[in-house]
Amino acid sequence: MKEISKLLGYREDVRVVDATLRDGGLVNDFYFSDDFVKALYQANIKAGVDYMEVGYKASKEMFDPTKFGKWKFSNDDDILEVFGPDPMIKLAVMADVGRCDFKNDIINKADSALSLIRVATYINTIPAAIEMIEDAHNKGYETSCNIMAITTAQEGDVKVALDMIGQSPVDVIYVVDSFGSLYPESLARLADLYLECGAKYNKKIGIHAHNNQQLAFANTIEAVGDGVDWLDATYFGMGRGAGNCSMENLLGFLRNPKYNLFPVLNFIESYMTQLKKDGVVWGYDLQYLMTGILNQHPRTAIQFTKEKRSDYTEFYKELIGLD
Amino acid sequence: MKEISKLLGYREDVRVVDATLRDGGLVNDFYFSDDFVKALYQANIKAGVDYMEVGYKASKEMFDPTKFGKWKFSNDDDILEVFGPDPMIKLAVMADVGRCDFKNDIINKADSALSLIRVATYINTIPAAIEMIEDAHNKGYETSCNIMAITTAQEGDVKVALDMIGQSPVDVIYVVDSFGSLYPESLARLADLYLECGAKYNKKIGIHAHNNQQLAFANTIEAVGDGVDWLDATYFGMGRGAGNCSMENLLGFLRNPKYNLFPVLNFIESYMTQLKKDGVVWGYDLQYLMTGILNQHPRTAIQFTKEKRSDYTEFYKELIGLD
Repeated sequence: MKEISKLLGYREDVRVVDATLRDGGLVNDFYFSDDFVKALYQANIKAGVDYMEVGYKASKEMFDPTKFGKWKFSNDDDILEVFGPDPMIKLAVMADVGRCDFKNDIINKADSALSLIRVATYINTIPAAIEMIEDAHNKGYETSCNIMAITTAQEGDVKVALDMIGQSPVDVIYVVDSFGSLYPESLARLADLYLECGAKYNKKIGIHAHNNQQLAFANTIEAVGDGVDWLDATYFGMGRGAGNCSMENLLGFLRNPKYNLFPVLNFIESYMTQLKKDGVVWGYDLQYLMTGILNQHPRTAIQFTKEKRSDYTEFYKELIGLD
Repeated sequence: MKEISKLLGYREDVRVVDATLRDGGLVNDFYFSDDFVKALYQANIKAGVDYMEVGYKASKEMFDPTKFGKWKFSNDDDILEVFGPDPMIKLAVMADVGRCDFKNDIINKADSALSLIRVATYINTIPAAIEMIEDAHNKGYETSCNIMAITTAQEGDVKVALDMIGQSPVDVIYVVDSFGSLYPESLARLADLYLECGAKYNKKIGIHAHNNQQLAFANTIEAVGDGVDWLDATYFGMGRGAGNCSMENLLGFLRNPKYNLFPVLNFIESYMTQLKKDGVVWGYDLQYLMTGILNQHPRTAIQFTKEKRSDYTEFYKELIGLD
């Protein structure tokens, strides 16, 4: 059992990362208004959030800029226009291995309002991730490595991957439960591997959870108790499929007085509920529970949602291959 | 950290209690059709659920039978009509201290289709609860004692209460997080007190969780890992306010092959989604999160919901008394 102090006190090293625009952007193809983004930025400042992820650095060769909002690409000009040259909060973008023209699209930190490049990779593309991490590091950024879909990887491979990443200049390594299939107990076991690597190579460890089994917040606070410092959350849990750890849950839990819940509630009332009314759909539902339980990619559940299906039992039979 | 076997194996002693009609009845004033109740009964049988709570034994002096569905009162005649004299699953009712005419309304087990009387009490009415437990025990029933709103009690008082209940003939003692304000770590500490009492007096321990902080399922599986055997859940999480631990989450987690998820999905698709369409409202929302974080009774949040308010920030200010 953990020490009492971990519930009532706090660790100075904890960092809260708002991933609303990035993971939430996967739900609405990144069509956020400037007004929305600016208000979110102000809310994050007042709430004491440490990092704000503004979107992806996606390749314009691979993705048509006319088919997505601007935060799919997060051009530095667009960032400057909204946040100015010297933001009051550290800004981050995500860059996917194989889906980012990082050599051109990630400019020198000296010329950018960004602070942190988050490199997202699968476990079979670690060398490519390290190349991107080194590139961003050399350009002057903080970096993180987010190994996605970790619940489909073998423990032996995870250890090797962590050892490779540990030797890179990366600052933070993330446990990413893309499928929302971890339980707090299995998360704790996985976090242990990451924390061992972090202790050996002097890296911080982060957690990015999905809410398929209504465990995104539970897994995040389990991780805090285990020694994980970097915590991703999104307002109202907005994110792909079942969504993420809710910012309002997280800031209601953290005890560091620099964090404030009220600005989060205010932003949700003013902006997030409107998104829901506009028909943007995310959050826990049975189809996501099923893919989470089965440790499957949520794409089938997302399609089920898009088609406005409600034949849950048929979907379950499709998933487990009864047909 | 817990043993790996606790995730992949199972304990024979675990019992799943379906509380849909009882806690869910608080949302729709117990107006469930016989068709609904019979289909739920069949779903529970197929799903391997161990106990089905059919409702309350509420006093007809205190509550007007014309203003509630019949499961508020759970007359033995009504139970017989729906379930027959020899149900294929053990049936339970809840009897509240001070709100139940137990001497008259709870008949001898030999004449009833019920198996289990669940006595609900606050910590300041333990002697009255014990009187009811003894009455039900002497009439031939299994009994549980559900100490509500436990997060507002002092640890010293909890210990005394548990010692008093431990000396009664009760079979199961429940941790009841009425306000949904426990975190898995605080639940684990509380469960430890109950489990100590259970070991001393040979009682089983149960958990009844609420979802105010999206932790009902997380707290329930934390409890399983800690040695708590009796687990309350409801279909689609239906229950007062933010609702309960979802049956579909729980049966997707438990590894005993006697439990089956599919009948649960089937019932939700056929019946629970219709309740939602009919305008019956329950489940996680910001107003419940706030009362959960603040360890307050959800009645203000329920009122907020009934009034269809969406001014979350005003509500928060009301709760913390800024006005």
